[in-house]
Amino acid sequence: MILTVTLNTALDITYRVPSLRPHSSHRVTEVTERPGGKGLNVARVLAALGHEVTVTGFAGGATGRTVQDQLLGAERISDALVPVSGSTRRTVAVVDAATGDTTQLNEPGPLVSPAEWAAFQEAYAHLLRPESSVAAVALCGSLPPGLPVGAYATLVRVARAAAVPVLLDTSGEPLRRGIAARPDVVKPNADELAELTGSHEPPSAMKDARRRGAHAVVASLGAEGLVALTPDGEWRAPAPDRLSGNPTGAGDSAVAGLLSGLVEHLPWPERLARAVALSAATVVAPVAGEFDRPTYDQLVTKVSVTQQSTAA
Amino acid sequence: MILTVTLNTALDITYRVPSLRPHSSHRVTEVTERPGGKGLNVARVLAALGHEVTVTGFAGGATGRTVQDQLLGAERISDALVPVSGSTRRTVAVVDAATGDTTQLNEPGPLVSPAEWAAFQEAYAHLLRPESSVAAVALCGSLPPGLPVGAYATLVRVARAAAVPVLLDTSGEPLRRGIAARPDVVKPNADELAELTGSHEPPSAMKDARRRGAHAVVASLGAEGLVALTPDGEWRAPAPDRLSGNPTGAGDSAVAGLLSGLVEHLPWPERLARAVALSAATVVAPVAGEFDRPTYDQLVTKVSVTQQSTAA
Repeated sequence: MILTVTLNTALDITYRVPSLRPHSSHRVTEVTERPGGKGLNVARVLAALGHEVTVTGFAGGATGRTVQDQLLGAERISDALVPVSGSTRRTVAVVDAATGDTTQLNEPGPLVSPAEWAAFQEAYAHLLRPESSVAAVALCGSLPPGLPVGAYATLVRVARAAAVPVLLDTSGEPLRRGIAARPDVVKPNADELAELTGSHEPPSAMKDARRRGAHAVVASLGAEGLVALTPDGEWRAPAPDRLSGNPTGAGDSAVAGLLSGLVEHLPWPERLARAVALSAATVVAPVAGEFDRPTYDQLVTKVSVTQQSTAA
Repeated sequence: MILTVTLNTALDITYRVPSLRPHSSHRVTEVTERPGGKGLNVARVLAALGHEVTVTGFAGGATGRTVQDQLLGAERISDALVPVSGSTRRTVAVVDAATGDTTQLNEPGPLVSPAEWAAFQEAYAHLLRPESSVAAVALCGSLPPGLPVGAYATLVRVARAAAVPVLLDTSGEPLRRGIAARPDVVKPNADELAELTGSHEPPSAMKDARRRGAHAVVASLGAEGLVALTPDGEWRAPAPDRLSGNPTGAGDSAVAGLLSGLVEHLPWPERLARAVALSAATVVAPVAGEFDRPTYDQLVTKVSVTQQSTAA
């Protein structure tokens, strides 16, 4: 089983409007909603690939109930979300039907109390007992208000103490603290790498990220695809050409690809091929955050992964 | 007891953002939510004035539960909302903190089935039994998808058959059909009057609205205040000068003022004074849709209502 942690889960709402005009009133023509937050997105992709996944993090209020109700119907996903007294945040994506552009409004999330954080840590440690057979854990996304900035560092340490491989996908100070706790993999994008290291040159920034504690660094560089700097070598997996679509969730699909390959003990090139193919199949899918299965099946055997060096 | 009907109830959400920029991502700095839809707004003002109110209409889904949970805590408001299988709509008001301007996004509301509409009509007829002692009923706001356009006409007829005074506050075709069923009061604004009658001259449009079936027409003309054309005469009640603030809910407060005066059997000038003072006290209140009690208390004795003619 793979465990994904989403401390700031969300109810992702998408509104379609004929044309967004600030300071006027709009009739929303189409409403869709689904559970969100990076770890839940990763879990959905993993489940679609056939993995058993358990999701944890916080859920609270009416929005939290809606998230949990919708998870109930998801195959191969077990809900281990921990209650919080505040309400799970909403995110609202307003899609302008005339231009296709999206305007995003993100609520901050519930204020998590020290007692709730302690309860979460207890549940998390329980999930990582040997008898749960957790093959890998992914720590994903932003922190809700009230949590210590070192929250992910704590969770990385607990996973490592349990000898469970841990992937960290966050940004800012939580990433800086978390990376120092020596996660197995981090998956920053170019901006997150630059913020972490001060360097806008991905190759040197990735080396710096490894020096800071990450065993492997997989950087997602948009159209350039993925670059991996690992104890086993350095690889580059460019994104397929001519992709157009919605990049929402492409990074989460890449994380799912990396985890899927990790738990199957695949070598790095195959992990990267999965990640790149899933990412591309997510961009071209008509629904934001879902991936197009035929595109994935077609691309996963074709992604060219080239080795840059044998020791990183 | 006063009965307010809100067929398209809402969970009104307000987001504060530092500055709204289309096609970018925003961190919402403040989230507030409360039950909405015109009839619920009217009920809240009536309850604040000391009236016992029952609210009906439809509620469904997680948003409907949130609306009903929040009504539970409201003094002098009884919840008689009827279940619907779809979800109560959300409305999102995005307030740009830099300019104070609001961008409004309104979901359409649940699709109401013929069986749900039949169940509502049964509940409504039950609420209007003589033993419920309903002193007045207000029919407020837009229709959710699926309801017949003559829904308000039907509800007006049932109220009249029960000898309960009925006020109708809606627009478009539902107003046109509803007015033909001879409601006691309609409260259109200038745009609604023009759409109904084709006339942009409020005095002649109001006469036309009475010919179409309304016993009394109270038109809200923005800064010009209220004009009433009734069987007892014609009055004009200008809005106080120099009001600045948020006009959201001012029309609903005016409806509450009219109803409050109606059930206390006050003469028209006093009903109009209440309506104008409540409306003004709503504009100046810091929270959208609430009214400022000291402003109301001060204005209600000072509003000047002038009679235009003795027979309309």
